[in-house]
Amino acid sequence: MSILVVGSVALDSVETPFGKVENVLGGSATYFSIAASFFYHDICLVGVVGTDFPQQHVDFLISRGIDLDGLEQIEGGKTFRWGGSYIDDLNAAETHFTDLNVFSDFQPKLPESYKNSSYVFLANINPELQMNVLKQITNPKLVVCDTMNLWIGISLPVLLETLRKVDILILNDAEARQLTGENNLTQAGKQILTFGPTRVIIKKGEHGAISLTESTFFSAPAYPLTAVFDPTGAGDSFAGGFMGSLATADNVSEQSVRRSIINGTVIASFNVEDFSLDRQQTLTPEEIDERFRQLEEIVRF
Amino acid sequence: MSILVVGSVALDSVETPFGKVENVLGGSATYFSIAASFFYHDICLVGVVGTDFPQQHVDFLISRGIDLDGLEQIEGGKTFRWGGSYIDDLNAAETHFTDLNVFSDFQPKLPESYKNSSYVFLANINPELQMNVLKQITNPKLVVCDTMNLWIGISLPVLLETLRKVDILILNDAEARQLTGENNLTQAGKQILTFGPTRVIIKKGEHGAISLTESTFFSAPAYPLTAVFDPTGAGDSFAGGFMGSLATADNVSEQSVRRSIINGTVIASFNVEDFSLDRQQTLTPEEIDERFRQLEEIVRF
Repeated sequence: MSILVVGSVALDSVETPFGKVENVLGGSATYFSIAASFFYHDICLVGVVGTDFPQQHVDFLISRGIDLDGLEQIEGGKTFRWGGSYIDDLNAAETHFTDLNVFSDFQPKLPESYKNSSYVFLANINPELQMNVLKQITNPKLVVCDTMNLWIGISLPVLLETLRKVDILILNDAEARQLTGENNLTQAGKQILTFGPTRVIIKKGEHGAISLTESTFFSAPAYPLTAVFDPTGAGDSFAGGFMGSLATADNVSEQSVRRSIINGTVIASFNVEDFSLDRQQTLTPEEIDERFRQLEEIVRF
Repeated sequence: MSILVVGSVALDSVETPFGKVENVLGGSATYFSIAASFFYHDICLVGVVGTDFPQQHVDFLISRGIDLDGLEQIEGGKTFRWGGSYIDDLNAAETHFTDLNVFSDFQPKLPESYKNSSYVFLANINPELQMNVLKQITNPKLVVCDTMNLWIGISLPVLLETLRKVDILILNDAEARQLTGENNLTQAGKQILTFGPTRVIIKKGEHGAISLTESTFFSAPAYPLTAVFDPTGAGDSFAGGFMGSLATADNVSEQSVRRSIINGTVIASFNVEDFSLDRQQTLTPEEIDERFRQLEEIVRF
């Protein structure tokens, strides 16, 4: 009963008010699967890299128990590279360059052993590819999807078609507003539920997240950090923590979903404390539990 | 053991996407005292109006048990009038006019019977006047203060002097950032605690509120409204519900403060459902309790 993630594996160059790194491990599938690995141990990754992708990154993913049978390596190809900075606003990256490289021809092809995955996360890729992935899956228990302003802008019809096949949509506040034309996030969330998903989770950065179904409303706090070192990967870390936790619960009761959203919040809060996935290298289950308890305390009244 | 509020009593002309009203009851002291009256029954108001102030508004305040001995009426004077609209952004009013009228010479003078008030709310007025009020108070249990961008901009030294005598500062996110130069709200809150207050409450509109002391952090949810009809007075309604609830508890334990913040949130959520204080005309204790319970459910995990 595995979690499948399809998304990017990348080498990022990032600048924040706290420093600068070049060609460090990144990508949505990477952040997601590492985050999920803190809660669950059967995670299958589908992505593509070039021959320039450092073996140490492969080793790190394997050390976290991630199944890389679906990580294609294109001979002579170059890995997807993204460069950006968060100088004035830690909530919005300024992209300096996007070299898609081998990712430009990415056609997700699921290994046989992946096709009966129970939990599917369609990371932020072209909705055409997201649909393509869903066609290869036999009988998933839960399909969760991410998207971004680009696809809402240029691929809305396919995105809406994809959403009809999705159980949970996770997106940020700006994306929810763009997708619906609604400024009020509660209203935007309700409208998204008419597009197909039975649940929508709207991430609000430092303001936490809200989760809506037709009959429930959950307000999740953010973990109060006094400094965000590097926000890259926060959203995918949230999604990974969320789905890893949910797969362990193996039910989608409101309570399981809420506790999983908090686990997602916790992993995302650690992720932004350092560049790349550096913080996850030393992160322990005890630290995760401690922050979960702090969040319980933060909302109690 | 009374609650004292010093602030404006006004006639507002407001336009929102949902409609338009002219010369309706408004003002910080009005919103505050009516909100507090849902929780507490000894509320003293200090403010000033002109002879044009309609008797029906006086009657409404009296019907809610507000002590108006401190409401000065200037013979032949005109009441403070404010006109504004919330067309593009419900979080920020566009001011069309501010006719201070009798409010321009407002010098708060406390009736003898007010001087031993236990709970003091210094609504958003010139910090010189806030200081002036504090000098007239004998021995308050708790002093809570509001402020705004104007005073942070033009009266920072006096504002900082006032804050040294204040127990709790309530302000919104933009004001907290302006006051500290910190973008991160947790960091801004911590910095404000070094200015004097032992607690700061930062209101974040649709994202709820946070409350910090040196050793505690509370994240309060917003009540999820699908439409904000008219945001005027939300902040003062929050403060009034908060202090009314806190005066009833008559202690400032972390739990009492948190439950009072939720009561403030509830009253503010009702306030924005209609123009002026129209919603408060029909609001019942049962409706307040019900929304309090809904907020408990909204954050439970």
